[in-house]
Amino acid sequence: MRITTICATLALALSFTASVQAQALEPCHKSKWGPDDQAGAINNITSANVMDAVKLVKRGKAVRMGIETNSKTPAFPPRTFAVIVLTPGQEYGGSLGETKTNYNDDIINGWVGIGSQLDGLGHIGIDGVYYNCLKGRDIVTAAGLKKLGIENVPAIATRAVILDMVALTGKDPVPEGTAFNRKEIDAALQRQGNMKINKGDAVIFYTGWTKLIGKDDKRYGSVEPGLGIEGAQYLASLNVSMIGADTWGLEVLPFEDPKKIFYVHQILLPMNGIYILENVNAEEAVKDKVYEGLFTLGPSRITGGVQAIINPIFVY
Amino acid sequence: MRITTICATLALALSFTASVQAQALEPCHKSKWGPDDQAGAINNITSANVMDAVKLVKRGKAVRMGIETNSKTPAFPPRTFAVIVLTPGQEYGGSLGETKTNYNDDIINGWVGIGSQLDGLGHIGIDGVYYNCLKGRDIVTAAGLKKLGIENVPAIATRAVILDMVALTGKDPVPEGTAFNRKEIDAALQRQGNMKINKGDAVIFYTGWTKLIGKDDKRYGSVEPGLGIEGAQYLASLNVSMIGADTWGLEVLPFEDPKKIFYVHQILLPMNGIYILENVNAEEAVKDKVYEGLFTLGPSRITGGVQAIINPIFVY
Amino acid sequence: MRITTICATLALALSFTASVQAQALEPCHKSKWGPDDQAGAINNITSANVMDAVKLVKRGKAVRMGIETNSKTPAFPPRTFAVIVLTPGQEYGGSLGETKTNYNDDIINGWVGIGSQLDGLGHIGIDGVYYNCLKGRDIVTAAGLKKLGIENVPAIATRAVILDMVALTGKDPVPEGTAFNRKEIDAALQRQGNMKINKGDAVIFYTGWTKLIGKDDKRYGSVEPGLGIEGAQYLASLNVSMIGADTWGLEVLPFEDPKKIFYVHQILLPMNGIYILENVNAEEAVKDKVYEGLFTLGPSRITGGVQAIINPIFVY
Amino acid sequence: MRITTICATLALALSFTASVQAQALEPCHKSKWGPDDQAGAINNITSANVMDAVKLVKRGKAVRMGIETNSKTPAFPPRTFAVIVLTPGQEYGGSLGETKTNYNDDIINGWVGIGSQLDGLGHIGIDGVYYNCLKGRDIVTAAGLKKLGIENVPAIATRAVILDMVALTGKDPVPEGTAFNRKEIDAALQRQGNMKINKGDAVIFYTGWTKLIGKDDKRYGSVEPGLGIEGAQYLASLNVSMIGADTWGLEVLPFEDPKKIFYVHQILLPMNGIYILENVNAEEAVKDKVYEGLFTLGPSRITGGVQAIINPIFVY
Repeated sequence: MRITTICATLALALSFTASVQAQALEPCHKSKWGPDDQAGAINNITSANVMDAVKLVKRGKAVRMGIETNSKTPAFPPRTFAVIVLTPGQEYGGSLGETKTNYNDDIINGWVGIGSQLDGLGHIGIDGVYYNCLKGRDIVTAAGLKKLGIENVPAIATRAVILDMVALTGKDPVPEGTAFNRKEIDAALQRQGNMKINKGDAVIFYTGWTKLIGKDDKRYGSVEPGLGIEGAQYLASLNVSMIGADTWGLEVLPFEDPKKIFYVHQILLPMNGIYILENVNAEEAVKDKVYEGLFTLGPSRITGGVQAIINPIFVY
Repeated sequence: MRITTICATLALALSFTASVQAQALEPCHKSKWGPDDQAGAINNITSANVMDAVKLVKRGKAVRMGIETNSKTPAFPPRTFAVIVLTPGQEYGGSLGETKTNYNDDIINGWVGIGSQLDGLGHIGIDGVYYNCLKGRDIVTAAGLKKLGIENVPAIATRAVILDMVALTGKDPVPEGTAFNRKEIDAALQRQGNMKINKGDAVIFYTGWTKLIGKDDKRYGSVEPGLGIEGAQYLASLNVSMIGADTWGLEVLPFEDPKKIFYVHQILLPMNGIYILENVNAEEAVKDKVYEGLFTLGPSRITGGVQAIINPIFVY
Repeated sequence: MRITTICATLALALSFTASVQAQALEPCHKSKWGPDDQAGAINNITSANVMDAVKLVKRGKAVRMGIETNSKTPAFPPRTFAVIVLTPGQEYGGSLGETKTNYNDDIINGWVGIGSQLDGLGHIGIDGVYYNCLKGRDIVTAAGLKKLGIENVPAIATRAVILDMVALTGKDPVPEGTAFNRKEIDAALQRQGNMKINKGDAVIFYTGWTKLIGKDDKRYGSVEPGLGIEGAQYLASLNVSMIGADTWGLEVLPFEDPKKIFYVHQILLPMNGIYILENVNAEEAVKDKVYEGLFTLGPSRITGGVQAIINPIFVY
Repeated sequence: MRITTICATLALALSFTASVQAQALEPCHKSKWGPDDQAGAINNITSANVMDAVKLVKRGKAVRMGIETNSKTPAFPPRTFAVIVLTPGQEYGGSLGETKTNYNDDIINGWVGIGSQLDGLGHIGIDGVYYNCLKGRDIVTAAGLKKLGIENVPAIATRAVILDMVALTGKDPVPEGTAFNRKEIDAALQRQGNMKINKGDAVIFYTGWTKLIGKDDKRYGSVEPGLGIEGAQYLASLNVSMIGADTWGLEVLPFEDPKKIFYVHQILLPMNGIYILENVNAEEAVKDKVYEGLFTLGPSRITGGVQAIINPIFVY
């Protein structure tokens, strides 16, 4: 079944139609920024946010929060990753012109959800319905999302608040199953000088969890400390723009309620348009005892992509 | 010829050895930052640079400079690109738990050098020798670069100077073959309020060239306005950290000297460790008549990668 | 959401469950060869078939029926294909040992359903149910089919009957929309010396359609002459093992009934376990006026694969 | 550096030219079938060979010689393999028309040299020169071989002689480092009823080696029993068309002379145009004590491919 160019009548005939028309869906979550919104809680970031974040830069230090992505990075099955480097046109010697120019080139064969990543608004749904009541069957194609693709994410520059859960708990890494809810979030804020979380902020948990990569990949990848359900609702109520952690999935595992699978993901992405950042590592800032600063992120704009391999820059 | 784990003696036997031992090489270019340096001219960015750049943020506006990457983006042969979206484990219906969690996932099958991209220091060489006198045969493997991989790029936050060559030349886009040398660079700086380029800056040319994408891909991809040889040497003498443009290859094509193929690339990457940014589009800032601001970039840290698909964030 | 090794309890929690439990399904089609059967109508091929086919070899001529597969082969969206050739470990010169051994290696990045292909029994379903009443949700994983994978296809050596529809219709290629039903099949058999189709045979239509590739890809890929619904039922009643044609989809397009989309595929694969061969070209045999012979095929045994890129060998 | 369509003058400028013009090459090996030959020793197969092979079919039994290829198949670094199955257009339910047609589709992301494989004549060279004196720099592009691509392999149907080295040596598997030279080959032939190898034959060694896959991948992939240098020259003198074994690399490892790396590959492919078959398993025929029969193979015709994942059919 291959068709280069489908003529109009055939295209019509070939349209996949829902097999279950009357399927009852849970009430979906409309965006508070309107029916065309694809940006989500990044809408909470105003120019005042940017200016306030910029004022936090005092040392002139910029650090990267991305970890490496490669074929050994532990990943959710069946995700795999490979980079291939080659020297096109230069096999068996050869170079370009009298300048003897050479070049290496590279190819990615891999799932995007490996290493540091941004979960776009098209990543997680509720019974087939995604952010802003967009139905999976309407936006998903094998060649890319028709809406909520990662290319739509606006420029990100805002204040980030880092929550050092290692210092709070006295455990490095914070043990798996440790849920971060309002109590823990507020305690961490208080310990760090009675900080406050503002509308539009990015919140980044530091747990020490990435230290397990390459040492105990099984433990790293099967469980984790992380955001709890009530904590997610709390941060959503504060109108943050995005939430991240140095873990593979942000939310606590084992889940608080074993029947609620990745429910924190649902609270954040489809219900509130809050982006999730995974495997973002604030270790260097934590070592400097810096807990707020300017957070910038420009995910690669792959048209129709669901996620992005990222490396946020934190400036303080 | 497949070997899962090569025993020590076989590995020895299998080492590829140079077939031409005595091949004379051009004198290579040692890094001024020492024999172990893999960061290049990003070393020129100090905390003072960061602080100065931050002070340029006055409107609280953040814009993205990345263009989209997809299967239709015109690309140097044989580069191709595809994203694949799928719903693992949910084929023919199904969701997770009582929360009815669904998810989309995505795969990249593609060459990295498509769309907005950062050329790492391992991209361009001179007769088989790369930045800091590293030999291609020592650092290149099909599974990734052993040195100069894109994962080594430090956090980037510095001042960017945007040079509006459309305004300077009065042509939109600036015609192919228009070389930007010291004269044009200085004229653009002067026109924009007698600006100066500082050590550590990123310099971004705006030419209007990306407007051709999708309209005249052939013209877009076969020629371009861009940096000339003397202009590259001039900017290198100013100790900039990186140079970009809204064109596929930064440097002017047809080349100023047809025998010097991608010589500007060589001046920048292997000779001076200055990074190249391609298809970075400063259009929005130019519309705002803003020519300097805070430029941040965190390329995805794919171990051993040559390039990165990027989306720099410009804050002003 | 990445998990390297899912612990038992998590694995349980993560099981995707059907969201629509009570969905009514059409009666499914059990295999006549038992509940464990994954071979389908290849079961119709007996040792007598093999011996009879071998006796048809009279000239000692072997021809290939495969067409080429590459990035330009017209294909059903979003299918794409690329082969990448590289020289691992030999970049910038180098070879192995005193024998100066070099090697090229190659990578496939592509959809399998391009060029000559075998549709396995896991390719086409009816409302989510596949051959032998296997449910899509039970056998499909993103990492491969758990049942009906292409690795299960038994060795194929049987008699092939070639039906020269160009000679029958006097048109080359046979026009799109020309349906091959019992009348046409019997007429072609009669024209070719009053041939008969036997149980276990492969039936291969020759239409001249592949001549359009590279000349009129749009026509080639949007329509085709081919097997009609009644013709498919007729051949199924004769207990053939597989049916092929030199077209991208075997069955006639526009469809005889526009509401019955790929219904011929359904009659053959899920209902009768009869394999479909696409873009198999019997041109050379037809030129020799040979319409029966020994047909052999060994599809590559990629575990969990749906289809195979093939090149059947026809001996006569 | 991306160019969609390179204009003529630029294409000229971009031609990679040899950096070492005067490099002395070993005398290369011209094909005995002429300067345009790309078929190699398959030229030795005549219609008489086909007829003789067909006469060997006595039981009407067809068996496959291919092993499975998947992500766990042990492979020479950096080769990796993945198949991806998806349901395009049917995510979150849906089917085509009133027939409720569904389909699965599959993608290969992988190196070809994994599992059962045919080494084409473009796989192995001597100091950069391939079969028929074709220079690597003239035929290799990243987008595929310009000559000696796997699409050129003619239809293969010939007699295969299976040599049961397990029975000969009394060891299962035959131990690594066991070289098969003239003495061993002749002994095996004699043990099997004083068989003879004819011009045009395929010769397949059976060693039991694939039994190690999944049990001791390290041993499997780092060493093997196999063809020795003198044995390769002996079989070449008999004008066989191809030689295979149930090992990953056909030739004995550790090599007979550690400085002669894959020299058997060189004797066969570039020097004599004799194809190599790897991981082809004759176990079923050996169990039946059948050592000759009709061997057929149609490698997938991927334009410019180096190798093919294969599944030869053996009929007896």
